Amino acid sequence: MKDIYEIAVVHGDGIGPEVCAATIEVVKAALGPDSPLRFSEYPAGAEHFLKTGQSFPEPTFLACRAADAILHGAGGLPGVVHPDGTEAGLDFTLKLRFELDLYANIRPIRLFEGVESPLRGVKAGDIDYIILRENSEGLYAARGSGARLRGEVAVDTLVQTRTGIERIVRKAFELARQSDGAPRDGVRRVTCCDKANVLRSYAFFRSVFDEVAKDYPDIATEYALVDAMAMHLVLKPGHFNVIVSENMFGDILSDLAAATVGGMGMAPSAEIGDANGFFQAAHGSAPDIAGKGIANPYGTILSAASMLDWLGHKHGDAKLNQAAGRIRSVTEACLAGGLLSADLKGSASTRQITHSVCDRLAAAA
Amino acid sequence: MKDIYEIAVVHGDGIGPEVCAATIEVVKAALGPDSPLRFSEYPAGAEHFLKTGQSFPEPTFLACRAADAILHGAGGLPGVVHPDGTEAGLDFTLKLRFELDLYANIRPIRLFEGVESPLRGVKAGDIDYIILRENSEGLYAARGSGARLRGEVAVDTLVQTRTGIERIVRKAFELARQSDGAPRDGVRRVTCCDKANVLRSYAFFRSVFDEVAKDYPDIATEYALVDAMAMHLVLKPGHFNVIVSENMFGDILSDLAAATVGGMGMAPSAEIGDANGFFQAAHGSAPDIAGKGIANPYGTILSAASMLDWLGHKHGDAKLNQAAGRIRSVTEACLAGGLLSADLKGSASTRQITHSVCDRLAAAA
Ligand SMILES: CC(C)[C@H](C(=O)O)[C@@H](O)C(=O)O
Ligand SMILES: CC(C)[C@H](C(=O)O)[C@@H](O)C(=O)O
Repeated sequence: MKDIYEIAVVHGDGIGPEVCAATIEVVKAALGPDSPLRFSEYPAGAEHFLKTGQSFPEPTFLACRAADAILHGAGGLPGVVHPDGTEAGLDFTLKLRFELDLYANIRPIRLFEGVESPLRGVKAGDIDYIILRENSEGLYAARGSGARLRGEVAVDTLVQTRTGIERIVRKAFELARQSDGAPRDGVRRVTCCDKANVLRSYAFFRSVFDEVAKDYPDIATEYALVDAMAMHLVLKPGHFNVIVSENMFGDILSDLAAATVGGMGMAPSAEIGDANGFFQAAHGSAPDIAGKGIANPYGTILSAASMLDWLGHKHGDAKLNQAAGRIRSVTEACLAGGLLSADLKGSASTRQITHSVCDRLAAAA
Repeated sequence: MKDIYEIAVVHGDGIGPEVCAATIEVVKAALGPDSPLRFSEYPAGAEHFLKTGQSFPEPTFLACRAADAILHGAGGLPGVVHPDGTEAGLDFTLKLRFELDLYANIRPIRLFEGVESPLRGVKAGDIDYIILRENSEGLYAARGSGARLRGEVAVDTLVQTRTGIERIVRKAFELARQSDGAPRDGVRRVTCCDKANVLRSYAFFRSVFDEVAKDYPDIATEYALVDAMAMHLVLKPGHFNVIVSENMFGDILSDLAAATVGGMGMAPSAEIGDANGFFQAAHGSAPDIAGKGIANPYGTILSAASMLDWLGHKHGDAKLNQAAGRIRSVTEACLAGGLLSADLKGSASTRQITHSVCDRLAAAA
């Protein structure tokens, strides 16, 4: 337990500042006047890059590393790119992941009451699983280091290590054990998603998965090739509990999964290492709707609930976990009550949603 | 025009022989007694590997290379693997792709009348696009050559070349030009799907795409990051016309896309090089339902229609194109008439579907 938890806040680009500000209000409302959280803002992102030539200033990095947790809006603007064609506004997220070794990217996929799935006949509660994305190696290890020669050939390298696979797979089994309410068919299960039939590094992933699985005889296991998995997430989403996957595959599958539960606006995310935790919604900066006040803040709000849970567990500070619980149930109530933003086919503004969530939190306190 | 077209047939594993035999009956019915196609069978696959230790015998390879076209059922059996963990039953498909340089994998995605999409409110005609998967390089270039060291690390290499990107992108624009019935919003369009924001080789893919696009000012272009694309295929499938993508991404997206139009049973595929053409449904060998007579043959039948079209164009032999047209319209009529296999929630057997398609073809002749 700490008197003060330092939260490093980076608003980022596009709708980042809007959803970030909304979320901080919500967290403050959940914790009340004695909140132990101290929010400090630092610059990073594509706009900052345009202004200063720096996408991720060193002081911001040092503050993030030293903070108890990091909260981010969203980063990146199309066209704001490095000479190699990759996006400057993503340096913040990607450098944090690698420098702070945030190896576990936890993406809960859940269809809430009040939100319509694009899948026929699927209703709230039918979809409730976690995509656990390896976040520190895989194809993303090539980021910034791929070779491009004479305009003739470009090469990126996919690296998977025993250490990296072992720890993410272990995390998957731990999450499956903790998952309250086993999935639809009553079985706690970890699905290993790979491309072991074609590529050696994924066959290696699967073999390490098999080894680690031996330590968790209480959890069912299965394999799914990534292409089949993409199909399953559409055709039998109710089957899954925890899905563990390499970095690039996790990136693709988690957006796909988000589409089935209301879109990127409903996609919270937590990126966790042994020391640090980084919290941001999985969506992008959506520059097309930035500044209009219509961005969906639920993804960031739910990411902040994960932040409170993580801080609470880490520091044995139950009041943070209680606040996380309140944020989750109030969020659920708001969605069920029809407080939907434009992306959810509603008409509520970011402000209306934020006020409503805060009011209910005040009433619940 | 040729008197005889040699078709090398490999039945493969699981349901492969069933759907392959059904398809040959259909092609014969479409072409009638004077059919210029001569079908010759050759062994390859996981079962053959179990029996002989060889997954893809050299004589089979030589016959495939020499043939006018190659027709395949499906390959692979789970657990029948090489020492490195990859599947022996896939050697046939993968070696053909690389040795014959079958660089264009054309996967039409179409929702037929009579088939229910799992997507809410989506009906026949709403989904009609092509996924053009680069089939000769990308992450699949690493197949068989990835390094695995001391059980500590495994590495696969993603290679993209200017030549490889240029020819697949050019093919995408040609397909968009040919696409009869422009997509829903009246625009012929090629979507470049990549991960240019993070990885150099995909940024290279995008830059070559931009260059080639200049030669096709009549075709609209756009970019989609692969994660966003996975979401779009669920949320706005009606938007797309031709999507072009690297090998691994194309693999994932085409299964996902198939899920939205009835599943893998409805996923035809054509793999084309400058000299050779290879035709098989995109589905696997489905050993769980093999031998039960309930496999869905439509994917392979539609792949064979593509084979006839390709042969007809290549050799200026219009009767082959006419036969392809008849197979397509009869297939459509059968689906619309409710002749659905178990995977489509119907109860028609492989035999019933095959007979019905053949009867209608005979009547149409
Ligand atoms: C913003 C971008 C770097 C990121 C990724 O590619 O991982 C995003 O798509 C995500 O899923 O977190
Ligand atoms: C059978 C397998 C090698 C293949 C692939 O991974 O490309 C299949 O999934 C496909 O899509 O054609």
